[in-house]
Amino acid sequence: MLAAARGAFAERGFDGATIRAIATAAGVDPALVHHYFGSKDQLFVAAIEAPVDPAELLPEVLAGGREQLGENVVRMLLRVWDGPMQPAGLALVRSAVGNDRGARLLREFLVTQVLRRVVGTLELSPREAEVRGALVVSQLVGVVLSRYVLRIEPLASSEPEELVAAIGPTVQRYLTGDVELPG
Amino acid sequence: MLAAARGAFAERGFDGATIRAIATAAGVDPALVHHYFGSKDQLFVAAIEAPVDPAELLPEVLAGGREQLGENVVRMLLRVWDGPMQPAGLALVRSAVGNDRGARLLREFLVTQVLRRVVGTLELSPREAEVRGALVVSQLVGVVLSRYVLRIEPLASSEPEELVAAIGPTVQRYLTGDVELPG
Repeated sequence: MLAAARGAFAERGFDGATIRAIATAAGVDPALVHHYFGSKDQLFVAAIEAPVDPAELLPEVLAGGREQLGENVVRMLLRVWDGPMQPAGLALVRSAVGNDRGARLLREFLVTQVLRRVVGTLELSPREAEVRGALVVSQLVGVVLSRYVLRIEPLASSEPEELVAAIGPTVQRYLTGDVELPG
Repeated sequence: MLAAARGAFAERGFDGATIRAIATAAGVDPALVHHYFGSKDQLFVAAIEAPVDPAELLPEVLAGGREQLGENVVRMLLRVWDGPMQPAGLALVRSAVGNDRGARLLREFLVTQVLRRVVGTLELSPREAEVRGALVVSQLVGVVLSRYVLRIEPLASSEPEELVAAIGPTVQRYLTGDVELPG
């Protein structure tokens, strides 16, 4: 089922893939997929072996309100990556950089499971939500790459709160600030 | 000579590697290394198969002065990556994400060939230069990953100048703005 799900999400994207089609490809009943994995979101998180389910972390990120969102997103990113999920996260990044299918899956994951949820709270037009979300990703994946893969100092050994203070304002500007929006 | 250089730069870093030691490892005279590659900077750029020599692009990046630096850095990044150097750049990123040696080489490249040159024009303390440079890298590698690897829309298909307008201010803040510096 997970292999069928990966194939479907990579080929059709998260929105285009259906539990019904995934079940058919796996030769099982759709009810069985629901029974084991719950929602399509949860199936996707399991299929790409995401180290965490963003849905579970969301309440904490949103708890500080709109003006704390930038800092809270960076804080949560660092907490997840500084913790035991780091190897699984690195595997996901390696797969994304190594082949197109991995890149498509990670993109779908970031857009549908992370960005839509965070940016979705801001009451933006769909277009503006897409643009602001993509800008946020451009900073967050850069933090991951510089701190955990390239290990560029002092990012690699900074305390999380130091990075929250330095980088949080960037994410906040992308989310709610004055940005000349591309596209 | 290039294999010996890659080994030396990966093991000892750019500053620790010497042309003399590289020549010895390659079984040639140091004069021959200088003859073929010029300076240690140039040897390094050749050894990691960097698609461009940042030293050659620097005058244009600096031409707009201190207040244009953020936008000009983003503009140059996009010009290089949107051009024929993209496959070589992607190979460098793949190698960096795929193994520690590749990561060390790309880190050394970014720090010694790109950051020191750009940030070196700002008359900062060595510590502040290091911190601001690393923050700049965190945004730039994120742009590369989102636009060229993950292909997240609308970043992937935006006009370069749209991204310069949206992301330039972030790089400018990291270079010369008000930043709570980590470390």
